[in-house]
Amino acid sequence: MAKEFVKDVTSMDEDFAQWYTDVVLKAELVDYSSVRGSMIIRPYGYALWENIQKALDGEIKRTGHENVYMPLFIPESLLQKEKDHVEGFAPEVAWVTQGGDEKLAERLVVRPTSEVLFAEHYKNIIHSYRDLPKLYNQWANVVRWEKTTRPFLRTTEFLWQEGHTAHATDEDAMEETLRMLNVYAYICEEFLAIPVVKGQKTEKEKFSGAKATFTIETLMHDGKALQSGTSHHFGDGFARAFGIQYSDKNGELQYVHQTSWGFTTRIIGAIIMVHGDDRGLVIPPRIAPTQVMMVPIAQHKEGVLDYAYDLKERLSSVARVGIDASDKKPGWKFNEYEMKGVPLRLEVGPKDIENGQVILARRDTGEKVTVPVDELETRIPELLEEIQSNLFNKALNHREEKTSVARNLEEFGEKLESNPGFIKAMWCEDQACEDKIKEEFSATSRCIPFEQEKVGDTCICCGKPAEKMVYWAKAY
Amino acid sequence: MAKEFVKDVTSMDEDFAQWYTDVVLKAELVDYSSVRGSMIIRPYGYALWENIQKALDGEIKRTGHENVYMPLFIPESLLQKEKDHVEGFAPEVAWVTQGGDEKLAERLVVRPTSEVLFAEHYKNIIHSYRDLPKLYNQWANVVRWEKTTRPFLRTTEFLWQEGHTAHATDEDAMEETLRMLNVYAYICEEFLAIPVVKGQKTEKEKFSGAKATFTIETLMHDGKALQSGTSHHFGDGFARAFGIQYSDKNGELQYVHQTSWGFTTRIIGAIIMVHGDDRGLVIPPRIAPTQVMMVPIAQHKEGVLDYAYDLKERLSSVARVGIDASDKKPGWKFNEYEMKGVPLRLEVGPKDIENGQVILARRDTGEKVTVPVDELETRIPELLEEIQSNLFNKALNHREEKTSVARNLEEFGEKLESNPGFIKAMWCEDQACEDKIKEEFSATSRCIPFEQEKVGDTCICCGKPAEKMVYWAKAY
Ligand SMILES: [Zn+2]
Ligand SMILES: [Zn+2]
Repeated sequence: MAKEFVKDVTSMDEDFAQWYTDVVLKAELVDYSSVRGSMIIRPYGYALWENIQKALDGEIKRTGHENVYMPLFIPESLLQKEKDHVEGFAPEVAWVTQGGDEKLAERLVVRPTSEVLFAEHYKNIIHSYRDLPKLYNQWANVVRWEKTTRPFLRTTEFLWQEGHTAHATDEDAMEETLRMLNVYAYICEEFLAIPVVKGQKTEKEKFSGAKATFTIETLMHDGKALQSGTSHHFGDGFARAFGIQYSDKNGELQYVHQTSWGFTTRIIGAIIMVHGDDRGLVIPPRIAPTQVMMVPIAQHKEGVLDYAYDLKERLSSVARVGIDASDKKPGWKFNEYEMKGVPLRLEVGPKDIENGQVILARRDTGEKVTVPVDELETRIPELLEEIQSNLFNKALNHREEKTSVARNLEEFGEKLESNPGFIKAMWCEDQACEDKIKEEFSATSRCIPFEQEKVGDTCICCGKPAEKMVYWAKAY
Repeated sequence: MAKEFVKDVTSMDEDFAQWYTDVVLKAELVDYSSVRGSMIIRPYGYALWENIQKALDGEIKRTGHENVYMPLFIPESLLQKEKDHVEGFAPEVAWVTQGGDEKLAERLVVRPTSEVLFAEHYKNIIHSYRDLPKLYNQWANVVRWEKTTRPFLRTTEFLWQEGHTAHATDEDAMEETLRMLNVYAYICEEFLAIPVVKGQKTEKEKFSGAKATFTIETLMHDGKALQSGTSHHFGDGFARAFGIQYSDKNGELQYVHQTSWGFTTRIIGAIIMVHGDDRGLVIPPRIAPTQVMMVPIAQHKEGVLDYAYDLKERLSSVARVGIDASDKKPGWKFNEYEMKGVPLRLEVGPKDIENGQVILARRDTGEKVTVPVDELETRIPELLEEIQSNLFNKALNHREEKTSVARNLEEFGEKLESNPGFIKAMWCEDQACEDKIKEEFSATSRCIPFEQEKVGDTCICCGKPAEKMVYWAKAY
C-alpha cells in the first residue's frame, strides 16, 4: 500500500540516496537536462528558492548591504592575482577559449566565485576612509566543474548570493564576518526550521585565500552533515594582492580588510533531507510556495466549486492558498500535495458546506481537525506556526539524538557506525590528526563550534593535550 | 557655470554619445571592468533594475506564468537542432572548450538565449493536452559576443527575463505573443514613462527561428530608435525540430505551438536617453530607488538632524525616502542627486523647522515649492504622480515632434537629416527596398505598426503599390 500511495518513492531507510533522487523528481523540484551536471530548476523548486531569496535578501538589505552585479567571466590573469585563491579554484573551473569566430588571446574563466572581480572594482572605487565600509552583495549563478553531481547538493552550475565587503580595520571585517554568519543561522532556524551548529573551520577546511572561515553545519536525516553557509574573513590578503588602499584620517595609506559570505541553492537539499519522509517533501510553512492546498470533495456537485473558490479568495489574506479543481480524484490529490510537502490540506465537500466547517490535515503529523469556517482566519495561521515550530523541534531532537561524544578513536569509529551523526571530540589542532581521522573514517572536521564543551583533555587521535572540541561527521 | 554644476558632463546637444557615457559613470550606474565588453552594475543601477524586475515579474506572474531556471551552458549539438536559430546565433556566442583539466568532447555554448533548452525540457514534460499551456519564464544572464559595446545598450553579457511558452494551437500562441507584448508596453508606459510604438518586425528583422516577431519601439532624445522588448511567435518550428508533441482529446498526436519574449537591462539605456538632461539622469518616480532625497540645511545646528531623521521615518510610509547627512556642502548634494535623477529633493533647515515647512524641488522642472510639514503625506505622492505623468507627456511630445512622414526617398533623406526621428513611409513588402533604404540612409525598418495610417499609395523606394506603413529610423 505504501508503494501505491507514494508513487514508487523508495523508502528512506532502505536507500536514502535513492529516496532523495525520487523525491526531487516526483515533487517536481528539478529535471535533468542534457547539460552535464546541470539541473533544470522547475517551477516548484524555483518558487521555493524565491521565498528563501526574499527572506535572505531582506536581511542582507536590513544589515546595510547593497546589491550589485559583476561580470560572469574572469580573465585568467585576474584570477591568478591571489595565489592561494587560484590554487583552490583553478582545477575546477570551466574555460571559455573562443568568442564568435575569434580564438581568445587570453582565456576566460566562468566565475566559480567573484572575489577577484570585487577586489578589482574595490581598487577602483575605494580611495578614502569615507568610502568605507563597502557592503556589497550579488545574486548570481556560478560554475564549478564537479566530477560527480547530485541535484541541489553538488551541481556544475548553481545559484547563490555572494556578499563581498571591505572595511577599514581587521576588527570591522571580523564583526561583519560573524554578523553574516548569524544572518545565515537566523534564516536557517527561523525560516527553514533547520537547527545549526555555528563555528570555525579548521585550517585544512577553510576557503582558498581566507584567513578564517566560519560555517553553519546542519545534520541530515541520515546522519550526514551539510555545510549550509560560510562566511570568510580575508584579512588584507586580497587588498595586498590587488593594491586596495585607502587614506585614513591622517592621510596615511592603509590596506582594506575584506570578507565574503555565500548561501546557495544547496540549502534546498537540506530542506529535503532534514524534513522529508517516506511520503515525500515536508516544506516549512514560512517558505512554502503553497501553505494551504484546497481539495474540493465531490466537486461536481452544485455549489461546491463556487464555495471553494470564494473561500480561497477569503483565505488568501492570511496564507498562500492553492486549489486543485482538476478532474483528478481526491485521493490522487492528497498524495500529490503530500509529496510536494504542502503544510496544510483543506478538504471541503457538500456536507462540510452544510455544516459550516472544513477539514484541515497537517502534513507534518498527518493529524486531521474539523474547523468551523469562520475560525479559519485565526486557525490557519496558528496551525502554520505550530507546524513551523514542530518541524524545528523535530529536527533539533533528531540532531541531539544523533550527536555523540568520543574520547578515543575506537569510540569514534564505534559511534560513527552505531549512531551516524555528529561526533564531538577533542582535537590537538595538528592537521596530521585531522588527516588521519578523515582517511580512516571518511569523516571530516565540520567545525570548531563557538559553544565549546570540554568533553576530554586529550586529542582523540594522538593523545596529546587538546584544548579544542570539534564536531566531526561524514558530510555531503 | 554649467560645467561646474554638472561635474564635467558633456552637453547632450554637443555630443550625445559622450553625454551618455559621462552620465552612466557619474551617476554611478555602472563601472567598467577588465572583462572585455562586460560592465559592473553598481548599487544605484542595480536598484533601478530590481524595481523594473519587481514591476515586470508581478505582471508575468499575474498573467499566469511560473519562473524556472535553465542551465547556463548549451551543448553544441543541442543548439544545432533548429537550423534558422543556430545560423542566427552561432557567430556571436562564447564557447567553453575545457572543464577543469579535461578538454571537452563536445563544446558548450554560453547561452545567448534559451529556446533550445526549453524545447528539450518541454519535450520531456509535455505529453497530453492537459499539460498545456506551459507558461514559463526565467530571469537570467546571457552572453553574446559583441564587437563594439556600450553600457546597457550592447554588452557581451546582459541580464534579462526570457519567457518561453507552449500551447495547443497556433491561435493560443499568437494570443500569448501579443499578451506579453502588451505587458512590455504597459511596463514601459506606466512605470518607465516611455511611450512605445507597437508593431511587427519585417521578415528581415525578425528573430532567428521565429515565424513572426513583435516589438515595442521607443525614441531616444537624439532621435534614434531603441528596440525595447520583443515577443516571438514560433509556430511549430521548434516543436518539429525537437519532437514536442501532445495527444489531443481524440488521442491524436499534435505538435505544440511556441512563443518566447524578452526584456533586458538595455531598457535602462532607454530611461537614460529618453528622460535625461544636461544635469544628468531623470528617473521616473515609480521605479526610482530613492523618490525623495532629503538634504538637511545647516545640519550642524542643534536639532536639525534629529528633526530630519524623524521626518524621514514619518515619510517612509508614503515614499522611498533617503537622507544625505554627510559633511558635504548642500550645493554638492543638490548636484549629486540631480545627477542621479532623484525625482524630488526635500530641503529642511532651522528656519523651515521654525515655520513648520520644508522646500520640495522637482527634478523634472526644477520648480521649488514650500510645503507645510503636515501636508507632506499628501503632497509628496501627488507631486510624484505629477512628475511621472509629466515625464511621459514630455517624451510623447518629443516623439511626436520627431516623427515625420516621407512620400519618396528624397523626402526620406531630407527628413532624416532635418528632424532625426521616426519616419512613417509606405513599403511594398519587398526586402530589396528595405535593403536599399538601409544601405543608403543607415535607417532600418523598426516595425509595421499595429496602428496603420495610409500616408501614401506607393512604396517610397520602388514606387510600386504599397499597403503597409512602416516606421523607419536610425537605431541603437
Ligand atoms: Zn592530535
Ligand atoms: Zn518597394
